[in-house]
Amino acid sequence: MNGEKNILHLRYLGIDAYMEAIVYARKDCPVCTLEGFETPARVYVSLGEHSLIATLHTISSDLIDPGKASLSEYAWKRLGAKEGDAIRIHHPKFFESLSFVRSKIYGNRFSKNEIEAIIQDISAERYSDTQVSAFLTACAAHGLNKEELTDLTQAMINVGDCINWHRDLVVDKHCVGGLPGNRITPIIVPIVTSYGLIMPKTSSRAITSPSGTADTMEVLAPVELDIAMMKKLVGEEGGFIAWGGSVSLSPADDILIRVERSLDLDSEDQLIASVLSKKKAAGSTHIVIEIPIGPTAKVRSEETANRLKQNFELVAKYLDLQVCVIFTDGSQPVGFGIGPALEARDIVNVLQCKAEAPQDLRTRALTIAGLIIEFSPNVTKGEGFSIAQKILDSGKAWEKFQSICEAQGGMRQIPKAPFTHSFFSPKSGKITAIDNRQIALVAKLAGAPNNKVAGVDLHSRIGNIVKKGALLFTIHAESKGELHYASSYLTDHTNIFQIQD
Amino acid sequence: MNGEKNILHLRYLGIDAYMEAIVYARKDCPVCTLEGFETPARVYVSLGEHSLIATLHTISSDLIDPGKASLSEYAWKRLGAKEGDAIRIHHPKFFESLSFVRSKIYGNRFSKNEIEAIIQDISAERYSDTQVSAFLTACAAHGLNKEELTDLTQAMINVGDCINWHRDLVVDKHCVGGLPGNRITPIIVPIVTSYGLIMPKTSSRAITSPSGTADTMEVLAPVELDIAMMKKLVGEEGGFIAWGGSVSLSPADDILIRVERSLDLDSEDQLIASVLSKKKAAGSTHIVIEIPIGPTAKVRSEETANRLKQNFELVAKYLDLQVCVIFTDGSQPVGFGIGPALEARDIVNVLQCKAEAPQDLRTRALTIAGLIIEFSPNVTKGEGFSIAQKILDSGKAWEKFQSICEAQGGMRQIPKAPFTHSFFSPKSGKITAIDNRQIALVAKLAGAPNNKVAGVDLHSRIGNIVKKGALLFTIHAESKGELHYASSYLTDHTNIFQIQD
Repeated sequence: MNGEKNILHLRYLGIDAYMEAIVYARKDCPVCTLEGFETPARVYVSLGEHSLIATLHTISSDLIDPGKASLSEYAWKRLGAKEGDAIRIHHPKFFESLSFVRSKIYGNRFSKNEIEAIIQDISAERYSDTQVSAFLTACAAHGLNKEELTDLTQAMINVGDCINWHRDLVVDKHCVGGLPGNRITPIIVPIVTSYGLIMPKTSSRAITSPSGTADTMEVLAPVELDIAMMKKLVGEEGGFIAWGGSVSLSPADDILIRVERSLDLDSEDQLIASVLSKKKAAGSTHIVIEIPIGPTAKVRSEETANRLKQNFELVAKYLDLQVCVIFTDGSQPVGFGIGPALEARDIVNVLQCKAEAPQDLRTRALTIAGLIIEFSPNVTKGEGFSIAQKILDSGKAWEKFQSICEAQGGMRQIPKAPFTHSFFSPKSGKITAIDNRQIALVAKLAGAPNNKVAGVDLHSRIGNIVKKGALLFTIHAESKGELHYASSYLTDHTNIFQIQD
Repeated sequence: MNGEKNILHLRYLGIDAYMEAIVYARKDCPVCTLEGFETPARVYVSLGEHSLIATLHTISSDLIDPGKASLSEYAWKRLGAKEGDAIRIHHPKFFESLSFVRSKIYGNRFSKNEIEAIIQDISAERYSDTQVSAFLTACAAHGLNKEELTDLTQAMINVGDCINWHRDLVVDKHCVGGLPGNRITPIIVPIVTSYGLIMPKTSSRAITSPSGTADTMEVLAPVELDIAMMKKLVGEEGGFIAWGGSVSLSPADDILIRVERSLDLDSEDQLIASVLSKKKAAGSTHIVIEIPIGPTAKVRSEETANRLKQNFELVAKYLDLQVCVIFTDGSQPVGFGIGPALEARDIVNVLQCKAEAPQDLRTRALTIAGLIIEFSPNVTKGEGFSIAQKILDSGKAWEKFQSICEAQGGMRQIPKAPFTHSFFSPKSGKITAIDNRQIALVAKLAGAPNNKVAGVDLHSRIGNIVKKGALLFTIHAESKGELHYASSYLTDHTNIFQIQD
């Protein structure tokens, strides 16, 4: 079908539009003229065996010749393009699943087929970001019933790869988040694998928080492992701590998370589908799920926590997964550091059993590690914590952690921020509350998680009695601009710490 | 604040990203380094007195020097940029209104202040398209109550310009759409202004349809008039037919409509706020609102139509506008042509009282023109239709239309499509239904409204008795690619016409 007329040859321009696929072509190029394409048309671009849907940006200058085209960095990589390669551009096949999204907006339920079609089209990148945003918003607004939620989770598993470890007991954990600094995974994995369990841990990067486990772990070792590397690590070490997105476990979820991030939205149903689809695809069989509850945490009431617990258990059962859901204290940040490098520092201090290690982080890690250890058929309920504690205090966990880091590609030094700004107590009194959301926002304004060294270092906690002028926290940033940006937020918002006389 | 370090000099690249503001800069440029910017950061860009929020796309090649930057065409125009101009790039001020959108997603109501903040931030282009999409979807999903709806409408008026014609009676009309080919405005304006009324008609371009009134009118005359030109036309001709977006009557609405278009979404509340904010800002006092009802029209039941009518009347009252809402037949397209040029042909045929003019288009135009004429204090209810008919049949309306077109910048010849493809009846029988949505979709797939000549020309209507092989309709396109794209949809979808033996 007009194949030869739809060809343009690639010229590298190196324009990075993050994860957006864009094709650049002359307004007057033969393809645009033949097909009637105008910006911002969604077009089907193919190169050899690879293809994707991209947004067309037309060029009216002499930047490239009419017979040439370019691609955004993301599209260039996805297509495996090289300078001079011939790409074909066509109208994309008409896709109907957007009408199912519209129907959902008006309160109708998804059928299994509809949800499958939507997830297939999203993972094939047929949806623009605005369309993905409408899907997420409609799901959050009306919620998903039990059938829709399990269908969504299954559909997300179906479009990606699945790993099979060929073991009966493959453990995992997940925290529903919302609690800055709660970075216990890199402490748990070496404890649990030292005990002899298999824990192939794939973590996500931050969605709406200043750091995800993958962001923090990346400070200490490479986290972009391929499946061969993961299998090697499970064989040699019993586990690893990798970024889940470096393998294609739930490609639709990666797209959904990217858009959720731009909306600062993190809905309950997407959370369950996202977590369980990735756990199932990653080959886990037994999972501890932590739900911190607090007035400024993601989950603010036991009612919400119970609903989440029920839905986790329901979907897990359908997927043949065993889950243990635990509620924890979410009233304030965990540890001292918030942001990748500062959290990494806390983790190493806990693993090394140093005096300056944050005790709340240590206790929480031991609690969850204990529950995971109790998945072993030969461990009685209640014994896990002390088993975990012995492993940590013996130094075995620290040894194991270094060994895992080396096997993942080499342990790294923790970098420090070149710019910091400290904040002091405006009065004497007792700290009665710390706003998790605002403190997380300050860390993000300072550049976390994109800049590893950026974040907030807390020097005080709820219950502390402080004098006027006492150090409350320090902002860390990689650039003066970001330090200023984060600090200026604090000029308008003075209620992050509540201090009572 | 580091003003000089935040400067980059412009180089023109001519990249057209439609209405998206993008700034292109080297990854290693001083501003990105200083401020810690990475793609896809939202950044504040200023040039002299102009400023906007743009998305950063970084460049890793030698396309531009580290001291230089470029802008997408839209941003280039909005900032009034010239080659070599110095732009400043900073972190945008933190905006809180996105948290109000999230609250709405979870079913809470907007306060007046919240809705004002959102609309201000949207019109200042602080929102990315995914964020606008979430706002629209959340509003559509939960609906707006009466207070929210009037607050939204008022907020949309507040952020734009308002025109005052200094007259007590300024008439207008609006059709809620969904009916392909229903292009009666260019017939009504010359009738009503011939009668002596003031009708300064600002129309929109297509949102989800194959043509808006502004798209169709543009085939016959320029529609991008500034306010001075509009005032001159009202003085000389009593009215005009212009594109509303060429003046800044409701700048937030233009952004909302652009995103709604990408979602193919057109919600009831946004509809009311959009229509009435623009009518009020355009200085109208008396408005006829047409709601076509039909199984495949936008409004499918009298229940929905009544709800819309009530809400139109309610918000109109709050804004001190007089409205007359009329329900019409929406069972099939109006006229023969669907798409800008084909509709323009039908309009001219009606104005010239030609035998081949579509009678349904003529009757509908006379009905609405009659209702508008009845807004005059000296016209009795029921007299309007025959007054309108006399003006049309006397040739005065056609004369007036030509005069208005000349005054708008010159009447144009209607172009014809170079490529057409006809479809014939697969069997003999009576046409019992025509699917408005599908026929509109075919016209869009053929390239309407961007390509003026594109669309569908209907040769048959509901009630017609056709023989096997009779001509049903013809697709018109500007390129072979689009003709093929539209035709291939028909291979999979054979139920556009229902024909009974």
